[in-house]
Amino acid sequence: MKINKNLAALPAGYLFAEVAKRVKTFSAENPDARILRLGIGDVTRPLAPAVVAALKKAADEMGTPEGFHGYSPDFGYDWLIDAIIAGDYAPRGVEIARDEVFVSDGAKSDVGNLQELFGPDAQIAVTDPVYPVYVDSNAMAGRLGDYVNGKWTNLTYLPCNAENGFVPPLPEKRVDVVYLCYPNNPTGTVLTKEQLQVFVDWALENDALIVYDAAYKAFISDDAIPRSIYEVPGAKKCAIECCSFSKTAGFTGTRCAYTVVPGEVTYDGVRLNRLWGRRQATKFNGVSYLTQRAAQAVYSPEGQKQILETIAYYRENARVILAGLKKAGILAFGGVHSPYVWMKTPEGMPSWDFFDLLLKKAQVVGTPGEGFGPAGEGYFRLTAFNTLENTRAAVERIVSVL
Amino acid sequence: MKINKNLAALPAGYLFAEVAKRVKTFSAENPDARILRLGIGDVTRPLAPAVVAALKKAADEMGTPEGFHGYSPDFGYDWLIDAIIAGDYAPRGVEIARDEVFVSDGAKSDVGNLQELFGPDAQIAVTDPVYPVYVDSNAMAGRLGDYVNGKWTNLTYLPCNAENGFVPPLPEKRVDVVYLCYPNNPTGTVLTKEQLQVFVDWALENDALIVYDAAYKAFISDDAIPRSIYEVPGAKKCAIECCSFSKTAGFTGTRCAYTVVPGEVTYDGVRLNRLWGRRQATKFNGVSYLTQRAAQAVYSPEGQKQILETIAYYRENARVILAGLKKAGILAFGGVHSPYVWMKTPEGMPSWDFFDLLLKKAQVVGTPGEGFGPAGEGYFRLTAFNTLENTRAAVERIVSVL
Repeated sequence: MKINKNLAALPAGYLFAEVAKRVKTFSAENPDARILRLGIGDVTRPLAPAVVAALKKAADEMGTPEGFHGYSPDFGYDWLIDAIIAGDYAPRGVEIARDEVFVSDGAKSDVGNLQELFGPDAQIAVTDPVYPVYVDSNAMAGRLGDYVNGKWTNLTYLPCNAENGFVPPLPEKRVDVVYLCYPNNPTGTVLTKEQLQVFVDWALENDALIVYDAAYKAFISDDAIPRSIYEVPGAKKCAIECCSFSKTAGFTGTRCAYTVVPGEVTYDGVRLNRLWGRRQATKFNGVSYLTQRAAQAVYSPEGQKQILETIAYYRENARVILAGLKKAGILAFGGVHSPYVWMKTPEGMPSWDFFDLLLKKAQVVGTPGEGFGPAGEGYFRLTAFNTLENTRAAVERIVSVL
Repeated sequence: MKINKNLAALPAGYLFAEVAKRVKTFSAENPDARILRLGIGDVTRPLAPAVVAALKKAADEMGTPEGFHGYSPDFGYDWLIDAIIAGDYAPRGVEIARDEVFVSDGAKSDVGNLQELFGPDAQIAVTDPVYPVYVDSNAMAGRLGDYVNGKWTNLTYLPCNAENGFVPPLPEKRVDVVYLCYPNNPTGTVLTKEQLQVFVDWALENDALIVYDAAYKAFISDDAIPRSIYEVPGAKKCAIECCSFSKTAGFTGTRCAYTVVPGEVTYDGVRLNRLWGRRQATKFNGVSYLTQRAAQAVYSPEGQKQILETIAYYRENARVILAGLKKAGILAFGGVHSPYVWMKTPEGMPSWDFFDLLLKKAQVVGTPGEGFGPAGEGYFRLTAFNTLENTRAAVERIVSVL
């Protein structure tokens, strides 16, 4: 049987496995250590009461002949799509049609699967550091060449660091698709409307596509920062946007997301909206009725109030981390419109060395920046998803070893 | 932007759209007609009370700090995997290890995504008629050549019909992967252990892979018929098996499935278990905690009793259809180990003509066999998922126009 050699040759998922391994070794050698984890990108606060109520109501319905629901519509129930449009787009002045929204089980699935719309020789660009799924999903499809010294030979890296204010440069060579994620994972930074406009203009001029990952948009605390790339003129002709309830409403263990593919996004006379619809209808069977009712409840007045309280909780954690690091004289970024704080390691220490130092001296776990790409070296990611109490304690410990 | 031309050129999903269009036109012209639908492949009976209780309990847990669950393990919770092994494999004498089971949101997703493990030039075979996902997912990846006169130029069709007793012949040319689905969709027929052994032996001899879709296994009513291909000696070296809770427990709108990739399935020295794990970990983010608790409840004593009652209900419908057709002198297949009855059209009438005849004269909707592949011409699919009352009425009407 002929196997997919690109998939077989893909380097093993290294970052979080290596983190877990080092933590496990340390724990075994120091059984009494109370380790504080600011490494995880997973939420920890309970689902909103409005969401729990919707789930239970839907479960009861599913147990009756009248209320039972079989297969969901491939792209989502209209009542959820309407709630998404009314809740996330209309208030920002963005017009989105029902058939431009595709409800799914996760933004990770969508950003991983979207590359199926691209030809085998499409040229890809990512910001660096980067969420690994953009890279790995294209590598599996054979678009990225070989992995040599931590870089893919046929991938365009757009480095983002303190020197350029975490604003990615435009690609210098021909690129068909650029992946942008704002608020950014892992750096926690955002782009202004003007900075995004540069990319939209570039895409329109170059017949290129932007895949825009807005999974963290609920953390944006300044109305001037775009929550959707469609707030930028021209973006509806050149951008696909992936959104998720995971960070917005604590749905990492509940699984609901949506992707917007505007009808106007067209290449070679082919509408990507049609292609994505065909892809989803063929290989995906819709999101469960319960989960869609839960997502709908997020947009109810109580749901909105409740999820904003949870986001405020995480925001306070991020503020505590940022304030503590700054007081200690450490350069740190993100953390304002994002649950992620991206700190410079002290004196340019390699990020894995800093990981080991923090683990051993402070019993705090974070994520080494190098794990997110070559330009992440010398940086370290801390997350705001632990409890406030643990976050405060962790920051004290971190500062004590700097 | 360079698009995926294979996806762009894929013929539109025709079958159910065309069925819906003809029904809509007829309804508009005959507003008083009471149409009975035996066309759908979707369940209609409510979820088992044990499943509803599990969903509500899990929803309550998710609303508390102690009971909240974030990201699920990529491949499923151990407690669900253990329940699957203990419930579906151990009683059949099949040994499956925890790390061979991958829980997912649907067998459609899994059978659609599995082709990502194959090289771009892997040669594919399907039985004919066939569930369209096997074909379309490979066509999108560019493996099937061109679509000419209803057939793909680079796909091996294994015709199944009354003449060969619906036992597919072995491929005559080199094939890397064969998709088998038993109990079969759409024909409702099964293969014995000896008939499956022929395919397993062929795969082992030819270094080929079997993708085995067992989504309908809960309908098997004879213990001598294998419920898993792993009951056949040698299959653990050459077969991947996809299973689902959709038809087993009415989960079409709840979404849970699992795929087994045994550790021994190896080609060119590469274990497919590792490749599938890498694929799933990269592009899929696990099944929701609630849904996995619901699936676990299917294996509880009450859950088992309740789902078997529902399956018995559908089985009785299938029996009514089969008995009615046979009494009217119509050749019909399936319906014993399957919710699908596959009937010969009267006097070899083209299946779309028979569709129109049934709709107009009997106001009954079924599915034309030609829609499932060239060898489906002259056949017609009826499903057992309506109510018993409607099923009885539909059969009377069908028989009256034969």
